[in-house]
Amino acid sequence: MAFTFQINTDVEFIHDENLLKKAEENKPVIQTRKVFPVCIAELVKDETQLNGITAKQSKKDLSQLPSYGWKRDDRLILDFGDHMVGKFEIDIDQTGSPMDAPLYLRIKFAEVPSELEAESRDYNGWLSRSWIQEEFVHFDQLPAKLFLPRRYSFRYVELKIIDTSPKWQAVFSNPTVTTETSADSSSFKPLCLKDEKLQKIYNVGIKTLADCMQDVFEDGPKRDRRLWLGDLRLQALADYASFDNTALVKRCLYLFAGMTTKEGKISANVFVQPKNIPDDTFLFEYSLFFISVLYDLHQAHPDENLVRELYPIAKKQIDLSLQMFDKDGKLIPDEDYPVFVDWSNEFNKDTAGQAEMIYVLKQFIFLAETIREADINFYREKLTLISRYARENLYRSERKLFVTGNEEFNIASQVWMVLAGVMSPEENREIMQTTIREMFPITGIATPYMYHHIVEALFQAGLKDDAVTLMKNYWGKMIDLGADTFWEAFDPNQPDYSPYGSPIVNSYCHAWSCTPVYLIKKYLTE
Amino acid sequence: MAFTFQINTDVEFIHDENLLKKAEENKPVIQTRKVFPVCIAELVKDETQLNGITAKQSKKDLSQLPSYGWKRDDRLILDFGDHMVGKFEIDIDQTGSPMDAPLYLRIKFAEVPSELEAESRDYNGWLSRSWIQEEFVHFDQLPAKLFLPRRYSFRYVELKIIDTSPKWQAVFSNPTVTTETSADSSSFKPLCLKDEKLQKIYNVGIKTLADCMQDVFEDGPKRDRRLWLGDLRLQALADYASFDNTALVKRCLYLFAGMTTKEGKISANVFVQPKNIPDDTFLFEYSLFFISVLYDLHQAHPDENLVRELYPIAKKQIDLSLQMFDKDGKLIPDEDYPVFVDWSNEFNKDTAGQAEMIYVLKQFIFLAETIREADINFYREKLTLISRYARENLYRSERKLFVTGNEEFNIASQVWMVLAGVMSPEENREIMQTTIREMFPITGIATPYMYHHIVEALFQAGLKDDAVTLMKNYWGKMIDLGADTFWEAFDPNQPDYSPYGSPIVNSYCHAWSCTPVYLIKKYLTE
Repeated sequence: MAFTFQINTDVEFIHDENLLKKAEENKPVIQTRKVFPVCIAELVKDETQLNGITAKQSKKDLSQLPSYGWKRDDRLILDFGDHMVGKFEIDIDQTGSPMDAPLYLRIKFAEVPSELEAESRDYNGWLSRSWIQEEFVHFDQLPAKLFLPRRYSFRYVELKIIDTSPKWQAVFSNPTVTTETSADSSSFKPLCLKDEKLQKIYNVGIKTLADCMQDVFEDGPKRDRRLWLGDLRLQALADYASFDNTALVKRCLYLFAGMTTKEGKISANVFVQPKNIPDDTFLFEYSLFFISVLYDLHQAHPDENLVRELYPIAKKQIDLSLQMFDKDGKLIPDEDYPVFVDWSNEFNKDTAGQAEMIYVLKQFIFLAETIREADINFYREKLTLISRYARENLYRSERKLFVTGNEEFNIASQVWMVLAGVMSPEENREIMQTTIREMFPITGIATPYMYHHIVEALFQAGLKDDAVTLMKNYWGKMIDLGADTFWEAFDPNQPDYSPYGSPIVNSYCHAWSCTPVYLIKKYLTE
Repeated sequence: MAFTFQINTDVEFIHDENLLKKAEENKPVIQTRKVFPVCIAELVKDETQLNGITAKQSKKDLSQLPSYGWKRDDRLILDFGDHMVGKFEIDIDQTGSPMDAPLYLRIKFAEVPSELEAESRDYNGWLSRSWIQEEFVHFDQLPAKLFLPRRYSFRYVELKIIDTSPKWQAVFSNPTVTTETSADSSSFKPLCLKDEKLQKIYNVGIKTLADCMQDVFEDGPKRDRRLWLGDLRLQALADYASFDNTALVKRCLYLFAGMTTKEGKISANVFVQPKNIPDDTFLFEYSLFFISVLYDLHQAHPDENLVRELYPIAKKQIDLSLQMFDKDGKLIPDEDYPVFVDWSNEFNKDTAGQAEMIYVLKQFIFLAETIREADINFYREKLTLISRYARENLYRSERKLFVTGNEEFNIASQVWMVLAGVMSPEENREIMQTTIREMFPITGIATPYMYHHIVEALFQAGLKDDAVTLMKNYWGKMIDLGADTFWEAFDPNQPDYSPYGSPIVNSYCHAWSCTPVYLIKKYLTE
């Protein structure tokens, strides 16, 4: 998720068994479903599609699959028709002379067709090669059933015959996927929208969210399958607007709350397999977003007991972060506890970080009021101080923009200051209008995570049409390029961009990209 | 085994359930044993060793294995100290930050060090790539035990880390092999020889035989694991001279006898997994060698009932082959039922094939006499005719050599005519002396199978010293090059020669190479 690996193996963590027990009690039921391919596919060039490649139906007929023999270097591509998260199985036999050598198969799982064109051996990015969804399997005897025990994220399955022998061919039948999700579609009625494009965006958003809903809200089911706090915040908002699986949000909150550092800091992410493990990565606002998730949950489903139970952990995050502000209310960045805002490290994040603190501090004060915090005034004063610093020292009224670092004006500063509500509604509108005028079309931003905040800031600033236009131009363009689910990374100015140098480790179904589900529901239907 | 693939899928086979039941009753017990590596190894260049590579003990200490962390592209080579046939397991854990990506491992099994240097992707030979002993395995969670269910043939195991992540390393412990063989070493006393070189050759031969003794006499435990009749003949001779597992020979005879073609022809080889299947490959003298195996078994352990039971199948082979001789007693070759003699197709095999018929016909007549065959004179007359043709038309007395084809004089013709005892002992001696003078050092022969027959012909011709010298120069040279077991193919003139273009599919433990066990016992100790 982040470009910079943090290694903090000396950090000591506590495990609060009481809270972790509650995380366990809120463990979801994984729903399974059998799915069969819709056709045999083949790859064709198509410059209108992602990486210039699409999959079209082959002349080979799926219903005749058991009649085809496959020899050395043959490739069978099965198209399951939509994005799948689950386990794959297929029956394998042989035809021709007796089997005088093992069958050696490569099985690739691809979310998008271009993954099938990329060769693993050519991948040399910084992200682990172990994420490439590719297996190699020998069969000494046939017939046999190939059941792969790992879970994959894909629409296409390619079976490539590395070898049989010149004397016989492999035969395949009964390809089946057993999908897995903790999203319960049976009790959820999707929105019906008049705008066809928005309806498509909404539908793909729902599919993206559902496929990321597993034992926890996963970052992406293909890769980096753990629970990240910043992503959880957006997934939870989309969840309230759709499946409304509250237990899963609670489970995730308990997991973060139950495994802080000794000093009380929350990790940016946790693992739940083979046991509950907090990661040694820490991000300034990801820790703070624990408060946002608790606040948003309380807004969606008021639960004062839960707020009371988790309040001490929420307060600890605020207290730790307040130590990073000087007496004037200015954020002093700490590179060991970096402000994330976006993947890109090409812009200064100080002002955005300052705004994120204000955004969360307001939510915290609401929670503090709910449980009648004795020191409430302390936090109110801090909010005033930090907000005043932003208004008086970071806002350039002549430009109608917030400045950051060394007289830098970037989009993240404006967006987060608007979301934090630092200025008046009229000023927010001016800020976002200036942003559109001076910084659109957007450049240098490749994450739906940051685009989400831009769109929401436009809505908050009352610029509904601009918000809808941006949503259509961004998430809509992914659909135009062939997306079945929304992607971890997408720069509309360079659609083939991969932060890893190859599509095979890109995550094409990624939690933080599902937010049109929330944005459409909140700003276009309510 | 053969360079030419035969595809005869239209051949109809019978399954004689009575005979196959007896094959089942003679199924051996597979003995298992736990073996642990002797050291961590690393590859070094050494021009005196096969392919210029050897393995030496690493500075890394095997006893400290659990303390080492292994990261992307690291290679751990475990040396088990001798050739192994069996299954491999190892415990895997991780050290460093939490496991934020799967572990992706490549595991290679190598009989000789140079296999570890060869890259599978570079292999493009005619033999199936599926024989390359290489697996790729993902672990989503650690700790875990890697237990590979397939059986491998190897001395070295290489674990290469394709990837972890920059945040953690893999840790290995408890590497273990469970070996498999049906050779019972407990009741067998190896020979003690004064000649150190011969003792080494004998020991490596015993190891080769033992590692090929599995559920049947396998061709090679690494590759082509089925039962070939021509190889069975040599293995059985070596077996009587060592482990003396008679039941295993009987089992193999019953398997061939129980699955002939409708017309009664025996396949060159059979499969026993997933069920008993005769292959659709047929070789002239391999079918005939059914008689040789039965004859040799009856010599080693007289069993008239067994001879009587299998005699009809033996007779069928002779009758079918006799149809290939013209009225003068000359073999008329049939390319659909080729004479094998040796892998090489660079020499004419007609005279060798004629000699093989005489060799087997003599054994058949012995068996026919044993069971009091009514038509015995018919076969005696055929033997006379075919032998006379050889003596009168194929022997060039002025050269003291047999001719073949278009006035070609090759070593195979001499060797098989001597083994067949077509000429007098004095003439045989002259023939082999001429052979030594005119055809040694041997060129164009790369199989221990053919070398075996050359050595035995020298012994039979009374040229014991020459036989021993050739055995030392051939099998001894494999040992000098680092052999733990004898190889399927070896040309001392070009030690790095592979019939497949790469050591990774060579079989370095191959049944037909174990015969010094038999030759030494029979000709040097009795």
